[in-house]
Amino acid sequence: MHRLLITGAAGGIGQIMRKKLRSLATILRLSDISDLGEAAAHEEIVPCDLADSKGVRDLVAGCDGILHLGGMAGEAPSSQIVGINVTGCLNLYEAARAHGMPRILLASSQHAMGFYRQNEQLDATMPMRPDGLYGLSKCFSELTAQMYFDKFGQETAIVRIGSCFEAPRDRRMLATWLSYDDFASLVDRVFKVPRLGCATVWGVSNNDARWWDNRAANFLGWQPKDNAAEYRAHIEATQPMPDPASPASVYQGGPFVEKPIVHDL
Amino acid sequence: MHRLLITGAAGGIGQIMRKKLRSLATILRLSDISDLGEAAAHEEIVPCDLADSKGVRDLVAGCDGILHLGGMAGEAPSSQIVGINVTGCLNLYEAARAHGMPRILLASSQHAMGFYRQNEQLDATMPMRPDGLYGLSKCFSELTAQMYFDKFGQETAIVRIGSCFEAPRDRRMLATWLSYDDFASLVDRVFKVPRLGCATVWGVSNNDARWWDNRAANFLGWQPKDNAAEYRAHIEATQPMPDPASPASVYQGGPFVEKPIVHDL
Amino acid sequence: MHRLLITGAAGGIGQIMRKKLRSLATILRLSDISDLGEAAAHEEIVPCDLADSKGVRDLVAGCDGILHLGGMAGEAPSSQIVGINVTGCLNLYEAARAHGMPRILLASSQHAMGFYRQNEQLDATMPMRPDGLYGLSKCFSELTAQMYFDKFGQETAIVRIGSCFEAPRDRRMLATWLSYDDFASLVDRVFKVPRLGCATVWGVSNNDARWWDNRAANFLGWQPKDNAAEYRAHIEATQPMPDPASPASVYQGGPFVEKPIVHDL
Amino acid sequence: MHRLLITGAAGGIGQIMRKKLRSLATILRLSDISDLGEAAAHEEIVPCDLADSKGVRDLVAGCDGILHLGGMAGEAPSSQIVGINVTGCLNLYEAARAHGMPRILLASSQHAMGFYRQNEQLDATMPMRPDGLYGLSKCFSELTAQMYFDKFGQETAIVRIGSCFEAPRDRRMLATWLSYDDFASLVDRVFKVPRLGCATVWGVSNNDARWWDNRAANFLGWQPKDNAAEYRAHIEATQPMPDPASPASVYQGGPFVEKPIVHDL
Amino acid sequence: MHRLLITGAAGGIGQIMRKKLRSLATILRLSDISDLGEAAAHEEIVPCDLADSKGVRDLVAGCDGILHLGGMAGEAPSSQIVGINVTGCLNLYEAARAHGMPRILLASSQHAMGFYRQNEQLDATMPMRPDGLYGLSKCFSELTAQMYFDKFGQETAIVRIGSCFEAPRDRRMLATWLSYDDFASLVDRVFKVPRLGCATVWGVSNNDARWWDNRAANFLGWQPKDNAAEYRAHIEATQPMPDPASPASVYQGGPFVEKPIVHDL
Amino acid sequence: MHRLLITGAAGGIGQIMRKKLRSLATILRLSDISDLGEAAAHEEIVPCDLADSKGVRDLVAGCDGILHLGGMAGEAPSSQIVGINVTGCLNLYEAARAHGMPRILLASSQHAMGFYRQNEQLDATMPMRPDGLYGLSKCFSELTAQMYFDKFGQETAIVRIGSCFEAPRDRRMLATWLSYDDFASLVDRVFKVPRLGCATVWGVSNNDARWWDNRAANFLGWQPKDNAAEYRAHIEATQPMPDPASPASVYQGGPFVEKPIVHDL
Repeated sequence: MHRLLITGAAGGIGQIMRKKLRSLATILRLSDISDLGEAAAHEEIVPCDLADSKGVRDLVAGCDGILHLGGMAGEAPSSQIVGINVTGCLNLYEAARAHGMPRILLASSQHAMGFYRQNEQLDATMPMRPDGLYGLSKCFSELTAQMYFDKFGQETAIVRIGSCFEAPRDRRMLATWLSYDDFASLVDRVFKVPRLGCATVWGVSNNDARWWDNRAANFLGWQPKDNAAEYRAHIEATQPMPDPASPASVYQGGPFVEKPIVHDL
Repeated sequence: MHRLLITGAAGGIGQIMRKKLRSLATILRLSDISDLGEAAAHEEIVPCDLADSKGVRDLVAGCDGILHLGGMAGEAPSSQIVGINVTGCLNLYEAARAHGMPRILLASSQHAMGFYRQNEQLDATMPMRPDGLYGLSKCFSELTAQMYFDKFGQETAIVRIGSCFEAPRDRRMLATWLSYDDFASLVDRVFKVPRLGCATVWGVSNNDARWWDNRAANFLGWQPKDNAAEYRAHIEATQPMPDPASPASVYQGGPFVEKPIVHDL
Repeated sequence: MHRLLITGAAGGIGQIMRKKLRSLATILRLSDISDLGEAAAHEEIVPCDLADSKGVRDLVAGCDGILHLGGMAGEAPSSQIVGINVTGCLNLYEAARAHGMPRILLASSQHAMGFYRQNEQLDATMPMRPDGLYGLSKCFSELTAQMYFDKFGQETAIVRIGSCFEAPRDRRMLATWLSYDDFASLVDRVFKVPRLGCATVWGVSNNDARWWDNRAANFLGWQPKDNAAEYRAHIEATQPMPDPASPASVYQGGPFVEKPIVHDL
Repeated sequence: MHRLLITGAAGGIGQIMRKKLRSLATILRLSDISDLGEAAAHEEIVPCDLADSKGVRDLVAGCDGILHLGGMAGEAPSSQIVGINVTGCLNLYEAARAHGMPRILLASSQHAMGFYRQNEQLDATMPMRPDGLYGLSKCFSELTAQMYFDKFGQETAIVRIGSCFEAPRDRRMLATWLSYDDFASLVDRVFKVPRLGCATVWGVSNNDARWWDNRAANFLGWQPKDNAAEYRAHIEATQPMPDPASPASVYQGGPFVEKPIVHDL
Repeated sequence: MHRLLITGAAGGIGQIMRKKLRSLATILRLSDISDLGEAAAHEEIVPCDLADSKGVRDLVAGCDGILHLGGMAGEAPSSQIVGINVTGCLNLYEAARAHGMPRILLASSQHAMGFYRQNEQLDATMPMRPDGLYGLSKCFSELTAQMYFDKFGQETAIVRIGSCFEAPRDRRMLATWLSYDDFASLVDRVFKVPRLGCATVWGVSNNDARWWDNRAANFLGWQPKDNAAEYRAHIEATQPMPDPASPASVYQGGPFVEKPIVHDL
Repeated sequence: MHRLLITGAAGGIGQIMRKKLRSLATILRLSDISDLGEAAAHEEIVPCDLADSKGVRDLVAGCDGILHLGGMAGEAPSSQIVGINVTGCLNLYEAARAHGMPRILLASSQHAMGFYRQNEQLDATMPMRPDGLYGLSKCFSELTAQMYFDKFGQETAIVRIGSCFEAPRDRRMLATWLSYDDFASLVDRVFKVPRLGCATVWGVSNNDARWWDNRAANFLGWQPKDNAAEYRAHIEATQPMPDPASPASVYQGGPFVEKPIVHDL
């Protein structure tokens, strides 16, 4: 791959991927509205607001692949959810359509499915159950990807990221944790497989505790290596047992299911 | 029911429902941005733009039920899809939440699922496959309804309307036709059943040709009576056979799957 | 059929079947612990306590078929549930095994599945969810039937009766009603089909509102004719709307889900 | 349709269809190895051995549709099964490919699925379980149709005919009967639907007793009208009860499951 | 956990768990009708007959968790099955309800499902098929657990134990073996997971030969480590090949499916 | 096992199995129409044309097991497909029936399912979709095996071989590769398991990239050890990226889906 665009490159995951993916393309084009520091020799820095349709079109020009991490990465007021995530997603897919349809890895979220219970096993085809406006915008993005594939052939890997951190932070993340290395190896597979289509992948490591069935993505040949169970004894020893009746214990979305909706449109 | 709000009451279906549902509530509150004529004795006319958050909140106040037909009813540029359908939907659900959560019948569309093939049988749980921006906005509305139910208990009947006209107009509508009477009887059931939850219903008559399985909505006790097959001989005799290879013959969305995307945000 | 045994023949359904089934066998052997009145020419009256193992063995001798309606027909203390329903069921199946394994129609109940929600569609294979001790005993009876079939070849029609009355009595029965005529025609089919196996049948009329899918019993050729929807207008006009949040509105078992457990063993 | 070819036109079903389908096409081309009598004004008679590759190619030339009833219509020695049914099927599909791929209605048989039990519900997608060499050749034909569709786009309606007679003849046919009128109306739908694909249809009337689920063919708009139940009282009154343990009572294929295999290749 | 009750603590599995689980709770309360020897410092020994309702209530008082291994652990006459297993189960759940509903691990058995064939894959939701009175009592216990969860919120892990021994003893146990260590780690997970609900788990090690799919229990994070395949070469070399046609070779329940029913109620 | 017959023993897989399976039986009977070289001490060489019914009968006499690798192993003209594969399969099963029904391992092929897409997950029960005449003959063989099992009890392991070579040769084989060792261990399990029935197994190693779900064969206890992913870096580095739009990239059958049909019967 000659040029890989990373949107949201200044964010938590973006900063890590900037380092881990440097050998995946000759040039990494990094974009964000926040400061991205100095560009290394193999990097291009292109600040861009995803809500700016024209800017996004320019941003995508010349790229062979897109790792789309940009947008609001958590619950936010409806003006931002619609103005940035919904609009930004349309801007990105239109830009890709205008520029040869480079393959896209779309960072979706488990919060598109957050109202399933923690003892339910989900696969890639079950109905969406977003746990808030943020989850709703991720559903919208997933369906945009599906529509552009059905209508134009645009390929996307929809990755429903669980909890992508250095290490799992609480009991819930024993099931939802995605290690940085496993995410990086997934990105590698997504951009190297000959044919991607529009595939939905649960972005989760090889944890003993599992809520999500990745069978539909087996064709990618992705095999996550890390396991949150290594952190279990420590977490169980140091954190208080949560109230089993609280929504955050019942639902996969955890604390997101209880966050308020702020409507300011 | 004391007061039933009908949004989009000046539209094609809205005008018919205005007549057919007059005995369903003491007062029909009719709303649209287009002219609604004179209010009858049992009617209230309240013009409102769905994109106006405050206006919608006032519109919903005092209503016991909402038949939500408003918004763009076909493919449209992204500025209208986001500005009216997406925003309007959020406005409506926030307004309902602010005013006691009256039951909502949400007019969704088969175009939320338009990229399935005509020889596939769909049920209420299969993944969405919108056939354009309009279909995408219907997906968004359905998922908004689901989220407000999961989070707040707001009840909605999501009705995926096929082709709601006086009579089926072409071969495709032999499968997708929803008669006005059958739609009216569905509205009746939705507002009379003791507990609705968030139910997805295919809005289609009892046609011999069927693409959609309404089993998940059996609990409503809705039994459509009309059958497009009565029009089959006439349609087959008077209309040329469509090209079986054209997308409009292959996909359930028919001509919608070939409509262009206009992005003007 | 020469001799058909009806247990529980003095009960509500038993009295009706006594009349409706008179042509199904040369002799109807009627049994109950309550008074059964005078025997007609084609009838034999054999009082019997189902908890009496030896009595049940004698009761079954010489019968070609058994319509097993006997036992506690509603929630009851555990001593009666175990002493009569559980023990009586074992007594009956052992008696049948000792006497040539006459075909059995076992009156089970929807209360074996009462904790499913009213908007869920059930078929014959879904996990049991009894709504009390009565439902639990029905589960036990169903599984006894299954075990005697697997182990010995004893045939049974397990009929999960909804609400078998003269007419539906409330909104819930618009979905659960089984008319007497439909039940009688089901009994007819069960005893006339060449091979029955161990089949689970939902005992419900052809109601517009349906919670139960009888596909697995289609081989019987049973086609219920009555429809509770004929009573809907009257019921909706004369009965207050139930609280949609009450367990009785949420669950299929209706008021049974709220009945207390009385444990007196 | 200008010219419809009927193979096996001298057989039981062929003779009836010759009469019932006369208005379906301007010309009926009738073929068989047996005598077909005089051609009527709208008929062409073209004798042909299906095992003759060249003859079949000529037979198909100029036809717009094919109703393929020809070949051995019951259990037969392997030399005939392979020599006529297997080879004949390949000959027919190659001929169709050479001549513009006219739509084909392939007369398959329930004996492609004969080893399922009579209390099992089958749909169009369950694994094949042929009950002898005849059934095996029908499986082969169905898969040939599927392969020619996947590879070349050749359209076929695979019709698994139950028991196509004037009336049901025994208890088993209460479930398997296909009336002549219902078959004729199915042929009509198959050749008039704009897009057929490669569809599997159970060829069975609207009988109360059902083993087969035709949902996958709902898109055709075919609605069978006849019901074997009208003959039930007569059949049950005049025929002895079959042994429920005999294979013919257990399996859907009935007596076919017990027929010997004659291998003479 | 402060106090864990182990019923059936003098039985085969009970004696092992007494040792392996000593660090799981501050106090192990051990109960049986057989002799339990001396209590260690961290143990309490409370003899109790499960058929004694009052005794069981006292037994459960003060416990934070229950490992319920008690009752008849194999085929037995109906008087014992009903008198001990059925009654004992009701006694236990009523006792738990009276004392704060401590979490229960219910030792069920594969014999609740023994009449499935050895080449069938079972999951947690398939219909029960008990292979005798013992299996029937296990079904009853599982459904009691489900009912107390649905009605009162009582949490249970239903563990369908395969063959829990030091090592697999025959070819069948190559698929059914549960090592002591794996069972102990399962108990650990069941009592440490924040929210259990009413979960069905197949109690089986990580054997190469598998009949059971534990996906529904993935949320527990239990990962069995042992594998019966390590014993395969030895078993195949030293044991005669069983008759493949015998019921014990056909069905998952093995020799249980052929055990006689003894009815002495 | 005393005598194991290997048909097609001179072919690519046959030559390897001749070496790897020498300890599986006292005598290996090797057969082919090509030269098989010298027989070792534990070998018998019996040349045979599978199209010769009498020859095949003699070939099978005295064998306790059959590894059936013989026949055309790739696309071929219809005369060979019917004359060798179809006829040869019938010859083999009739010979087995005549000689005590020794267990058969039937070498089927993924080309029986070649028209599924590479991002679809297949299991053992999905409808067949052959990608040519070769695949069609494999379907026929699988169904012959099923019919002989249902009718006569003949046991077969139907093994859908992916790509059985020394190493994977291209990107597609990263998903389809079956190592020789893994195939040999599968043969071992098939002939040692007490009861086989008629089981369908995907013949594929433990590759990271997976299209096929072998759950239905879990009862065999087969655990493949090799993983094509070890060859991935090399293959991706040395082979050009295939055109993602070419049928060979889209369908599981790869280049087979584009091979022409040669009909010369």
